[in-house]
Amino acid sequence: MTPNRKKPNINTTPVELMPDFQFAISVDCVIFGYEENTLKVLLIKSDLPAFANKWSLLGDLLHPDEDLDAASYRVLRDRTGLDNVFLEQVHTFGQVNRHPAGRVVTTAYYSLVNIRHHQLSQLDNELHWHPVNDIHEMAFDHKKILDTCLKHLQKKVQEEPVIFNLLEQKFSLRDLQNLYEAILDVKLDRRNFRKKLFTTDLLTDIHEMEQDVPHRPGKLYTFNHARYAKMKKKTFVGIDF
Amino acid sequence: MTPNRKKPNINTTPVELMPDFQFAISVDCVIFGYEENTLKVLLIKSDLPAFANKWSLLGDLLHPDEDLDAASYRVLRDRTGLDNVFLEQVHTFGQVNRHPAGRVVTTAYYSLVNIRHHQLSQLDNELHWHPVNDIHEMAFDHKKILDTCLKHLQKKVQEEPVIFNLLEQKFSLRDLQNLYEAILDVKLDRRNFRKKLFTTDLLTDIHEMEQDVPHRPGKLYTFNHARYAKMKKKTFVGIDF
Repeated sequence: MTPNRKKPNINTTPVELMPDFQFAISVDCVIFGYEENTLKVLLIKSDLPAFANKWSLLGDLLHPDEDLDAASYRVLRDRTGLDNVFLEQVHTFGQVNRHPAGRVVTTAYYSLVNIRHHQLSQLDNELHWHPVNDIHEMAFDHKKILDTCLKHLQKKVQEEPVIFNLLEQKFSLRDLQNLYEAILDVKLDRRNFRKKLFTTDLLTDIHEMEQDVPHRPGKLYTFNHARYAKMKKKTFVGIDF
Repeated sequence: MTPNRKKPNINTTPVELMPDFQFAISVDCVIFGYEENTLKVLLIKSDLPAFANKWSLLGDLLHPDEDLDAASYRVLRDRTGLDNVFLEQVHTFGQVNRHPAGRVVTTAYYSLVNIRHHQLSQLDNELHWHPVNDIHEMAFDHKKILDTCLKHLQKKVQEEPVIFNLLEQKFSLRDLQNLYEAILDVKLDRRNFRKKLFTTDLLTDIHEMEQDVPHRPGKLYTFNHARYAKMKKKTFVGIDF
C-alpha cells in the first residue's frame, strides 16, 4: 500500500463543509440507578415503527450552537428534572445504518443518579426504571451502548469513588457492598471488602445506626469527598494484566 | 425545574433530519511511536490561516457511507501506509467553535505503531515524529486531544499489554522498562519491574542476546500473545482509590 499524503485534509487545508458530508449527531444517556439491591437503567418505549414496543435509551439530536456535553446534560435535565448529577462520556457509535431516519452518529454518556431523590411523576412512553439484567433486546444499537456503558461503570467503580452517587449520603457497609455486588455481578468477601474500604481512610463513621431494617442495624458512614479531593493521585498504579 | 417529558425525541418519534441539525464529523488520530528512549507523536503542519505554522493531528472528515471507525483506519492507512495496527477510540470533542470552517465534531482515536516498521518517505506539510514532551501548543483543540489520549495510554499500558505494539518483536527488559518510563514519565525500580513482569508469565525467553548495544547485552524476550488471549480476564480486580 502506497501512502497518499497529498490529499487535502481538514486539518491542513481550508475546506468547505459540503452538505453531503454533514450528518445528524445525537447524544444517548445511559442513566443508572439503584434500588432494592438491583442496578437499574432508565428507559423509554420507542414509537418508531421499526422498533415498535422496544425499549430505548433517553437521547436527542445535538442542537446548533450547543456543545456536545451540554446536549447530554439537557437530555438528562429534561427527562429527570435533575441538574447537578454525575455524567460522563463513554463512546461514540457511528455505524452507517444505525438509525432508520438517516445517518445519525451518536455519543453515549452514562449518568449515576439516586433513584429516591427523583420521582418520575409523568410516565409518557412508559418511562421507567428497569433492572439492567432484565434487558436483553433494545431499539437501535442501544443494547450495545448499554453494555459498553455498563462495562465502563464496572471498571470505574473500582478506580474512582463514583459509586457514592448511587447511594444515600449516609449508608451502611452492607448497602455499599450490596451495590458493588449488583454492579459487578459478583459476590465479595465481607471481611476483605470492609478491610479494603477502611484502608482507604475515606469513610467517616457518623455515630448513627440504621433504622427500620429487617436485619441487625449497622453503623452509618459518609464518604469523605474533601479528603479524596486532596489525595495525591498517582500516574503509575502498577502493571496489572 | 419541571421535567419536560413531552418533547418529541429522536429515539421515540419519527423525525426528519433537518439540515440545520446536521454537522460535519471528523476523526483525528493520535499516532504514538517510540524511538531513542522517547515517546513520539506523528504530526503535520497546518496551512489554515488561523493556525499558520502550528502542528496538528492527522485527521479527515467522515465520508458518507463510511463507519466512524473505518474513517480512522482510512486516515491512518493514507498517512502511514500501515493497515494492521492498534487503533482505539478515546473521546469525542464537540465544542461549538472548535473548527474555523464551521461546526465540526471530532472523534479522537489513538494508535500505537513501531516507528522502525514504517519509513515516512514523503514529508508534505513536514509530516514527522515529535517527542510528546516537546509539544506545548497545537492547532485547533489538538493539544487537549493529545493530552486526553496520552492520559488514556498511560492508564491502558498498565491494564492491557498494548505497549508491545510500540516495540520490536524481540525486546530486552531494559527496552521494555525504558518504554514504560517514557510513557508514564516516571522512574521505575528495576528489580520490582522485572519481578512483576515475570509474575505475569507472559514473557518468553527466546535464548538470544542483544547485539551491538552500548551496554552489557541483555536477554531477548517475546510477548506471549497466545497465552494472554487464553487468560481469564476478571471483572473485579479490586477497589483502588
